[in-house]
Amino acid sequence: MINIGLLGCGTVGSGVVKILEKNKTDIAKKTGSEIRIRQVLEKDPDKCYKIGLQSDQVTSHFENIINDDAIDIVVELIGGIEPACSFIIEAMKKGKHVVTANKDLIAVKGQELFATAEENNVDFYFEASVAGGIPIIYPLKQSLAANQIQEVIGILNGTTNYILSKMTREGRDYEEVLREAQELGYAESDPGADVEGLDAARKIAILSSIAFNSRVTLDDVYVEGITAITLRDIQYAKELGYVVKLLAIAKEVEGKIQARVHPAFIPLSHPLAFVNDVYNAVFVNGDAVGEIMHYGRGAGEMPTASAVAGDIIEIGRNMHYHSNARIGCTCFKEKGILNISELNAKYYIRMTVKDRPGVLAGIAGVFGNNNVSIAQVLQKTNNQEMAELIMITHTVREKDLQDALTVLKGMSIVFAVNNVIRLEGIDRDNG
Amino acid sequence: MINIGLLGCGTVGSGVVKILEKNKTDIAKKTGSEIRIRQVLEKDPDKCYKIGLQSDQVTSHFENIINDDAIDIVVELIGGIEPACSFIIEAMKKGKHVVTANKDLIAVKGQELFATAEENNVDFYFEASVAGGIPIIYPLKQSLAANQIQEVIGILNGTTNYILSKMTREGRDYEEVLREAQELGYAESDPGADVEGLDAARKIAILSSIAFNSRVTLDDVYVEGITAITLRDIQYAKELGYVVKLLAIAKEVEGKIQARVHPAFIPLSHPLAFVNDVYNAVFVNGDAVGEIMHYGRGAGEMPTASAVAGDIIEIGRNMHYHSNARIGCTCFKEKGILNISELNAKYYIRMTVKDRPGVLAGIAGVFGNNNVSIAQVLQKTNNQEMAELIMITHTVREKDLQDALTVLKGMSIVFAVNNVIRLEGIDRDNG
Repeated sequence: MINIGLLGCGTVGSGVVKILEKNKTDIAKKTGSEIRIRQVLEKDPDKCYKIGLQSDQVTSHFENIINDDAIDIVVELIGGIEPACSFIIEAMKKGKHVVTANKDLIAVKGQELFATAEENNVDFYFEASVAGGIPIIYPLKQSLAANQIQEVIGILNGTTNYILSKMTREGRDYEEVLREAQELGYAESDPGADVEGLDAARKIAILSSIAFNSRVTLDDVYVEGITAITLRDIQYAKELGYVVKLLAIAKEVEGKIQARVHPAFIPLSHPLAFVNDVYNAVFVNGDAVGEIMHYGRGAGEMPTASAVAGDIIEIGRNMHYHSNARIGCTCFKEKGILNISELNAKYYIRMTVKDRPGVLAGIAGVFGNNNVSIAQVLQKTNNQEMAELIMITHTVREKDLQDALTVLKGMSIVFAVNNVIRLEGIDRDNG
Repeated sequence: MINIGLLGCGTVGSGVVKILEKNKTDIAKKTGSEIRIRQVLEKDPDKCYKIGLQSDQVTSHFENIINDDAIDIVVELIGGIEPACSFIIEAMKKGKHVVTANKDLIAVKGQELFATAEENNVDFYFEASVAGGIPIIYPLKQSLAANQIQEVIGILNGTTNYILSKMTREGRDYEEVLREAQELGYAESDPGADVEGLDAARKIAILSSIAFNSRVTLDDVYVEGITAITLRDIQYAKELGYVVKLLAIAKEVEGKIQARVHPAFIPLSHPLAFVNDVYNAVFVNGDAVGEIMHYGRGAGEMPTASAVAGDIIEIGRNMHYHSNARIGCTCFKEKGILNISELNAKYYIRMTVKDRPGVLAGIAGVFGNNNVSIAQVLQKTNNQEMAELIMITHTVREKDLQDALTVLKGMSIVFAVNNVIRLEGIDRDNG
């Protein structure tokens, strides 16, 4: 018998209780032992009773879980930094294995948590912290372990992917689609962490740490959200053969790690271009495996519960074979972090300029003086005075581009630099 | 130190040697021990020398591997049933762990191999046997283990996917594209096992066994290849909003398993519709996780080597923690197999019929008498005498459809039933 202490019986917690109950016979066969929810820490016991838990299984005191020696695994689904962090550390110190879906915590306190797990010889599993039910963390640590990973590109936030997909497909504005997403429950009433890119940044910090075997924390990730994306940008993307996605990108470049979250143009031929609505996907490029992509639901009660329960089963197997801690922290390297200013990329630039002879030459001159080479130009005349200028650059250094833009913003012929969006997933060798 | 005895140094074997050498420092850190190729069984030693192996590492006698007590893991990459099967069994009996990429063998002799592994308390890993480098077997056994899997649908054969993709995109005939694929090395000079669906059938037998926890062998799989697919069918598919793919499908229906390989129409909105050229993908539907899909290269030197080397690392970790055999055979159920005649599906039917009044009524009558209800009809007139009739049925029983077709084939108004193709992946709830 494996006894679970569950912290939090909200959406995901309820899902975990349901799936462990529904499939308990098969799960016991796979694990080698029966798995039972022994105690649930939850302030609102009705949430627990509603899914069939008994009153002796529900507590509002963490002490009743931490001091229960029969509890083998603590499943932390409270979220946030505190008290989740202290609860996990206390549990590990008591020799309890831990499963969590808490991306906020791992992206910030990962190192401390792994160290505590190792000191106490316990398992610390967190498949659910990135991309919900999609298996990606353990495949990176296991089936793909022989690879040097070169890049990980994820669509890791369902809310923003839903908004961008809707804007693209239905030609509707950001504000309108966001409101609809809030009504449907796909976006929170305070959508900040999603639309500003913070949620995706936490997840890419976790994935980069695993992919590159070197700790990456939230602070190391450059973050830009989707709030500045307009329907115009999406339409120009389409005209040029691209689609706009909020990407979470991690690459190893000359021994350093580049981790960033920002909207990007990706070619319509890229596998990530087909990932729409609330779906998530993680695209990985390894030196042996080449390009692979895992796709599925990145959030929600049952998909996230699937990942949490999978982790519980794995820990159960480890308990059966006395092989706990067989896969711990894999950050055995210390790689530097590349600043965004050192990025080499192609860029889409949309500007509003004076519509008169010589303007294009003047702008092109500023780019040229700053080593920014232009690959493609579209000029759209709005009225007699103003023109919209769309440019795609060749591969240039971010710093050079920003320098050029600073000069351009000061010129009288430039009314506004409306948007600058990086291109990603081009120059692939896709056989 | 973990010592490998490698059987066969062909394409995949060379890839394994290369990746273990290239990434050896990181692999040693992840495994907990250094991994070394100790002996390679290969008749053509030049293949071994070319990739840097020394003469004392190469042998043409299996005895030199089986009797070498220092060898911990035997990696079987010879392929085929014999002598691979005997070699694996002998190795297991000597207490050696086994990694293989041999789908032919597992699809036929899986039960015997797993039983032998269990009796001898050794690991038997085979991630590379299905979909090359794409992690799918261990994700099904681990991260997705809490789910009842409802269906697995794979594009598991690169050759046929390349041929169908080319026919679709370039409007070219089967024979012409097959010849080109042979010239490019994407199809064998004898393409039978690929184009007749046998290769995909072996792989879906393996995947179904794992997904449904019940042994499915090659004989249980209904198989139809792509040789009867014409450009006309592909064009009509497109006209109706579908694309033609060779699918390997496994579903659990009322406690029984249905496993089949055949060309199918899938809607353009289905994630598998975007899997083109030599790429493979496995789409899984689980009761908790919902729909997920893993995508990547299903064959080739390095992708397949990635999976083999990943398995070696896992076994190394098990050795380190004395937890070998922690994931063995998961076929703890005995579910029946559904005959193809019991399938309920929608069908595309293309017929050549006499072009005169009353013909459609006559044909519709035969379908009606056999409980086959028609959803959609397109009539294309070829000349004054003949018309091409394209029909899509509602969901009907395969047996009823076949009965109707038998009657139709005997009617003077029907010149030919040119093709019948099942529809798949419709009626999805994709949020």
